[in-house]
Amino acid sequence: MARKIILDCDPGHDDAIAMLLAYGNPDIDLVAVTTVVGNQTLEKVTRNALSVARIAGITGVPFAAGSPRPLVRTIENAPEIHGDTGLDGPDLPEPNFELDRRHAVDLIIDTVMSHEPGEITIVPTAGLTNIALAVRKEPRIAERVREVVLMGGGFHEGNWSAVAEFNIVIDPHAAHIVFNERWPVTMVGLDLTHQALATPEVTKKIADVGTEPARFVLELLDFFRDAYRENQGFEFPPVHDPCAVAYVIDPDVMTVRKAPVDIELTGGLTMGMTVTDFRWPIPEDCRTQVAVKLDHERFWNLVVDALERIGDVEA
Amino acid sequence: MARKIILDCDPGHDDAIAMLLAYGNPDIDLVAVTTVVGNQTLEKVTRNALSVARIAGITGVPFAAGSPRPLVRTIENAPEIHGDTGLDGPDLPEPNFELDRRHAVDLIIDTVMSHEPGEITIVPTAGLTNIALAVRKEPRIAERVREVVLMGGGFHEGNWSAVAEFNIVIDPHAAHIVFNERWPVTMVGLDLTHQALATPEVTKKIADVGTEPARFVLELLDFFRDAYRENQGFEFPPVHDPCAVAYVIDPDVMTVRKAPVDIELTGGLTMGMTVTDFRWPIPEDCRTQVAVKLDHERFWNLVVDALERIGDVEA
Amino acid sequence: MARKIILDCDPGHDDAIAMLLAYGNPDIDLVAVTTVVGNQTLEKVTRNALSVARIAGITGVPFAAGSPRPLVRTIENAPEIHGDTGLDGPDLPEPNFELDRRHAVDLIIDTVMSHEPGEITIVPTAGLTNIALAVRKEPRIAERVREVVLMGGGFHEGNWSAVAEFNIVIDPHAAHIVFNERWPVTMVGLDLTHQALATPEVTKKIADVGTEPARFVLELLDFFRDAYRENQGFEFPPVHDPCAVAYVIDPDVMTVRKAPVDIELTGGLTMGMTVTDFRWPIPEDCRTQVAVKLDHERFWNLVVDALERIGDVEA
Amino acid sequence: MARKIILDCDPGHDDAIAMLLAYGNPDIDLVAVTTVVGNQTLEKVTRNALSVARIAGITGVPFAAGSPRPLVRTIENAPEIHGDTGLDGPDLPEPNFELDRRHAVDLIIDTVMSHEPGEITIVPTAGLTNIALAVRKEPRIAERVREVVLMGGGFHEGNWSAVAEFNIVIDPHAAHIVFNERWPVTMVGLDLTHQALATPEVTKKIADVGTEPARFVLELLDFFRDAYRENQGFEFPPVHDPCAVAYVIDPDVMTVRKAPVDIELTGGLTMGMTVTDFRWPIPEDCRTQVAVKLDHERFWNLVVDALERIGDVEA
Repeated sequence: MARKIILDCDPGHDDAIAMLLAYGNPDIDLVAVTTVVGNQTLEKVTRNALSVARIAGITGVPFAAGSPRPLVRTIENAPEIHGDTGLDGPDLPEPNFELDRRHAVDLIIDTVMSHEPGEITIVPTAGLTNIALAVRKEPRIAERVREVVLMGGGFHEGNWSAVAEFNIVIDPHAAHIVFNERWPVTMVGLDLTHQALATPEVTKKIADVGTEPARFVLELLDFFRDAYRENQGFEFPPVHDPCAVAYVIDPDVMTVRKAPVDIELTGGLTMGMTVTDFRWPIPEDCRTQVAVKLDHERFWNLVVDALERIGDVEA
Repeated sequence: MARKIILDCDPGHDDAIAMLLAYGNPDIDLVAVTTVVGNQTLEKVTRNALSVARIAGITGVPFAAGSPRPLVRTIENAPEIHGDTGLDGPDLPEPNFELDRRHAVDLIIDTVMSHEPGEITIVPTAGLTNIALAVRKEPRIAERVREVVLMGGGFHEGNWSAVAEFNIVIDPHAAHIVFNERWPVTMVGLDLTHQALATPEVTKKIADVGTEPARFVLELLDFFRDAYRENQGFEFPPVHDPCAVAYVIDPDVMTVRKAPVDIELTGGLTMGMTVTDFRWPIPEDCRTQVAVKLDHERFWNLVVDALERIGDVEA
Repeated sequence: MARKIILDCDPGHDDAIAMLLAYGNPDIDLVAVTTVVGNQTLEKVTRNALSVARIAGITGVPFAAGSPRPLVRTIENAPEIHGDTGLDGPDLPEPNFELDRRHAVDLIIDTVMSHEPGEITIVPTAGLTNIALAVRKEPRIAERVREVVLMGGGFHEGNWSAVAEFNIVIDPHAAHIVFNERWPVTMVGLDLTHQALATPEVTKKIADVGTEPARFVLELLDFFRDAYRENQGFEFPPVHDPCAVAYVIDPDVMTVRKAPVDIELTGGLTMGMTVTDFRWPIPEDCRTQVAVKLDHERFWNLVVDALERIGDVEA
Repeated sequence: MARKIILDCDPGHDDAIAMLLAYGNPDIDLVAVTTVVGNQTLEKVTRNALSVARIAGITGVPFAAGSPRPLVRTIENAPEIHGDTGLDGPDLPEPNFELDRRHAVDLIIDTVMSHEPGEITIVPTAGLTNIALAVRKEPRIAERVREVVLMGGGFHEGNWSAVAEFNIVIDPHAAHIVFNERWPVTMVGLDLTHQALATPEVTKKIADVGTEPARFVLELLDFFRDAYRENQGFEFPPVHDPCAVAYVIDPDVMTVRKAPVDIELTGGLTMGMTVTDFRWPIPEDCRTQVAVKLDHERFWNLVVDALERIGDVEA
């Protein structure tokens, strides 16, 4: 049976690819998409999400906008990585459907509470503001959600500081809430996603798909490659967000390791760090695990396969 | 015209008196009551709020339950001050009406958004979790609310630590959100409320009212006096929460001083302190003010007057 | 018997007046003067200390230079209050004697250890780097020193931040060390020294002394008044440092209150705050007290008297 | 020419082996040994240092005691790893020489200042209190010392917390001072020393030396193995401190990587972490490097060789 997921995102180049993967893969049932401030303003990422939905031909899935700002910290976006629109590079079509009228927080709560316990998986690929607000407004979702598989953090790698990653550091208090709730959390962090490089072999395979959505992905990767070269010294860009979706599709696409993870909220150098405790022994009640090693080929094959299944979409 | 207020509370002995004052005073229009974890668990303080409503004969006002826990910190209650029930002392009647079906956060948002800008004043006398969640879920309320007049904090006094007050320190992140929003905030803190002592003259006047609600208040004050003697060395108990309501009724009941206030979130000794900057000059865009000096007689006359107006309530 | 003191200072206008008071008053035996970075660089304040010694005719007292920087934080001086030289205003004479060859830390240790227990009082009127280094290098001085009477901090007032004072905030780690040692500490903070205003009556009395050292003090106060008007909105300047010396001379010059004091080292808004706990009850082992109320006339009479005793000094 | 080193230590099982390696290796000239609180109290580790000197036959090297406590934090020892004496396991002989009369801080300063610039290397294998006090008392040593090669910290590993190592976390403020000074610092941290396991092959080689000092090392390793099995789940014990000495002898015994390192002083979860920034690009003025990969055989051969050179020592 396909896994029902709520994708909470801030498209964002890699968020867009994550959405295509989730929609195109037959083992995922995308039941809701929610947006949140992050890579760009809420307004921009929400518009981007709807445009990507049109490109992918997504229909019948509610999209809702969430929080325009983090819980406590002030807004920080990432234009150096995603450009002024949040999705610089390709030309984006006008959205062809409307947002759900509910707030993302209520859409998340309603979706979880109207499904059976253990049915819904939440996949955040952005700051965790929406998820934190949802579980604070309706604490019972913590027991009903199957698991949270998120892109964010890193046990040994950082990008926005020496030891902190963007999605976590932009709203560390929300992350603290999510990582300390009763649900299982899989952290797909930089340690893993820095392995998900879009190498020339990868872009070749995507080009071979030959469809409009595939061309859209190539344009995203073009922009992304330049941004990561100039800003972080990568030769090929790490494509973070689809890794979280891939883990839901096929846990064997990566190895994971059980370890307590908590969020540093007060450090002068370490604010927003996902502090991971690998010391012996692992506590029995540990509900968090971290992604360690990616099967690069298996991962990208999932992406290519999803693009092939999506095919060419009627405008 | 009467001032429309939402009372957000955690009854709590002084919350109960605040509710009686707000309901009994003709210059206040109590449009909603919301509850939040604080002096006791959400379940207990919500039940207490309904029982107090019955004692006061409150009808036609929606009551809604809010957050059972703070945003980030773990739950801390105050049984040493309010007892195991949160309202130890008097016998409480069974509630005679039901809670509103909405979450307190939605009741707050709906109430503010369905009134004209500048019409609604929010009066929190508890931790600020509900108010913070409301303004994060619906940012527009920050511009529509007339002002926030809250009991909490202190510029020179603390009770839960040397420099922090209970309502703020139990959810400092929520307080940070509320104090940094665009609405005007009046902080009625310990500096002021430690002047609102229920002296023998005060209890005499209340006894003279001679009604059931007045006897209920006397029983509350009996328990409160003993709790404050044993725990904080007060001869007569400070009755914090009605001070915030009194300021809305009559700003001349206290003097206030404009000064920037922010919440310390990372101090080892000062976590939850309402850091108030009295240095010269006051910034022009300062939206916060702090209560300094209480007119003790005027304040208690308001309370006695409200009890007289409430009179004896039919059970 | 005169009280033997080590004056640890960073002249500094009010440090200079403190030195004159300590040298001119017959109840003080000034046994050593040490300097430390603070109002200006170590080099400047040390040169200033020697120049002031020449103006006052101080002889036979060892002067030693101490730390050129705080323990952990980077250097912060106060040119807006003390000018580029650290003693802007008067013309300063060339020093007429040499520094002791020892480091200030060793001079402090040697002085304390070569006197009887309880004989030496340390009077810091600057950042506490030297005192902290001394007690860490020779822990036994904590039991031999009679008391530490320091100018710094404030229980309800701040100048360098809303809640922190310059002498403490420039080296909060040193202050933490000093306030947590076994010796008694009297904190003469801004709450007290903001009462020590050099009003026109005060300057008139000093002018009436008619000596060169008195004229030097007037020139210091002229510069100081302008600096405090422009920077902190004072009509007349607060003359901080001699207050600590005055307390050693005559404890009745101010009222003090026993209360635990600790130093905040991690607060985002409160770093360097002297957190004072006035809550009931005072712990029995409390070794700290804070100065509350100054007898303004008595204090300034001590300063005038010291100037009169110093008289005119042969160049 | 042999490298002149000051060994600053808190013996401590691995400190003792570090001392034997430094004394026995011909490329090291051990010019001073200083002790500091850490694995046990200053009194115990100082006595241990002298006993180890007797076992190794060390003569003509000044030994001095330093700080009995950290700069700011309270004392924390490690009896679970080193036992009640700090060197549990072997029987220790009475010391056969006296301590230098100077404080360790002054011995360090005198030693550095009396040698040519670039001649002295400081090798701390304990908390950094002595080194911090020395460079604060005499700032010029920062430019005269050739480099600081220390055992402590870890870029990806912790033992006393998820991300902090004992030597750093017991005095993080001292570590902050040392890592931020102008001298080059090589951090030989847990990432490296957790590779320096005393495997059965290693103990066999040491046993084959057949001398009293070698038997002493075997007894140390026996106790250490049990302590690390019970407390940290290691099969064979990591022998930290001699790794720092080994790097001075032969930099090829390990690979190192240049990266900025700073010490976290305020984190709730990360206090005392050696925050290492591996992000691209490395700043040009970076003066810190971290040890990454140990040549296990080469390292232990150095230890065995030193024991062979020491031979049997006349009591």
